[in-house]
Amino acid sequence: MIIVKIGGNILDNPERLQAFLLDFAQMPGPKVLVHGGGKIASALGQKLGITPKMVEGRRITDAETLDLVTMVYGGLVNKNVVAKLQALGCNAIGLTGADANIIPAQKRPVREIDYGFAGDVAGPESINADALEFMLEAGLTPVFAPLTHDTKGSMLNTNADTIASVLATALAHKYKVQLVYSFEKKGVLQDAADDASVIPYITAGKYKLLKETGVVNAGMVPKLDNAFAALQQGVAQVLICEGEALPSINTRQYSGTTLSLN
Amino acid sequence: MIIVKIGGNILDNPERLQAFLLDFAQMPGPKVLVHGGGKIASALGQKLGITPKMVEGRRITDAETLDLVTMVYGGLVNKNVVAKLQALGCNAIGLTGADANIIPAQKRPVREIDYGFAGDVAGPESINADALEFMLEAGLTPVFAPLTHDTKGSMLNTNADTIASVLATALAHKYKVQLVYSFEKKGVLQDAADDASVIPYITAGKYKLLKETGVVNAGMVPKLDNAFAALQQGVAQVLICEGEALPSINTRQYSGTTLSLN
Repeated sequence: MIIVKIGGNILDNPERLQAFLLDFAQMPGPKVLVHGGGKIASALGQKLGITPKMVEGRRITDAETLDLVTMVYGGLVNKNVVAKLQALGCNAIGLTGADANIIPAQKRPVREIDYGFAGDVAGPESINADALEFMLEAGLTPVFAPLTHDTKGSMLNTNADTIASVLATALAHKYKVQLVYSFEKKGVLQDAADDASVIPYITAGKYKLLKETGVVNAGMVPKLDNAFAALQQGVAQVLICEGEALPSINTRQYSGTTLSLN
Repeated sequence: MIIVKIGGNILDNPERLQAFLLDFAQMPGPKVLVHGGGKIASALGQKLGITPKMVEGRRITDAETLDLVTMVYGGLVNKNVVAKLQALGCNAIGLTGADANIIPAQKRPVREIDYGFAGDVAGPESINADALEFMLEAGLTPVFAPLTHDTKGSMLNTNADTIASVLATALAHKYKVQLVYSFEKKGVLQDAADDASVIPYITAGKYKLLKETGVVNAGMVPKLDNAFAALQQGVAQVLICEGEALPSINTRQYSGTTLSLN
């Protein structure tokens, strides 16, 4: 089975989104889509006078921002993606981590920074994988917004990359899972200035070296750390590529980066 | 099984909502909640400069209003209700008619008035009842926002009363369905000025009489027409009562109106 995460670079571009959803709808077998937020939330927040709260460069989810992301990610983005997939013959069902209690989380503890309503997922063992498998077996395609809940009545804002990797790991005991992170570049680049310098394979050993030599920069480190953690917990393969590469991922034409343990 | 519809008078009041959800969570057996919108959408629309569009006294769903209701009903209201029910031990799953294609609809045809993105449901036979039954059998409690989709990629705005009655009718072949419309009054009143004048039972024959004599006024007619249509199509019972009456509906303490064919 396949879990695909898409972010703002696809969501914010109606033509790219439609082309991506067509490719995604046509993929055979059980599949899950996880989407991020994109610029729509910030644009709407601005109209509503909600200024993004940052503390030491980190984004804070205060109560009004939580409402904003619950509306935009859980409502506008999620339901429009579901409606578009339905029109393409893919029996999508839009979910957050609160729905069927699939992803219970904890409000991030306040230490140096109070992140507000940010949700951390304890790990794949806390996922209600049965509910998810049950939908997949019924031929449904879950579409996740980057939201969880605290099991005490509040929604929480959770990173979409994290949701994708924790779902992939939770399903790895039952399925051979491919986890695809769609990316703004064609893959992990050897030279950030050269879009053609995609590194085709990265093993755990090579990743260590790429970090040490600074080839993999700050922004990519959390994503790749996440990816290797998923591989260590049983996910079969992690792919980092452009959204457009989706139809090619199990062919020789695949042009992105494949991560594997060794 | 039971299908309960709640509207703005409960959704707009946090204490009433919490008390209602506690009662609802404690009801045994399969159940479905359908919610309307409440004032939150209008308030947010106002902040965003979206003025409610009315033509000949009828509300029009233009493109920006569709985005607004998709966000607010499908995201903010729906997911917060789901998170609160989860905290009360009820395994809720938030849905629109697009999810799992449960309620396909048609954009209302343009005749004298162009209603915009308003969705009409052809009838209970167009409901994907299998998907819904499958969730109910798995112990999930579907929570529906008043939204459907046109199966061509667009969400549609659909009246919550209609959604409740069409779901009730679609499930009537499999379950003995009670359909509960929570109402701002204690029930259907004999005298609109006297809240204590609840009519306990209304049969189809009596309803005809109440309409002829003008006891049932304009605002109630579509709701009651809908209710009797549901009864004619196999729904076991329709109850019209205050949200607070929910725990009493199958007891002698029930104080609302019960509708039945005869």
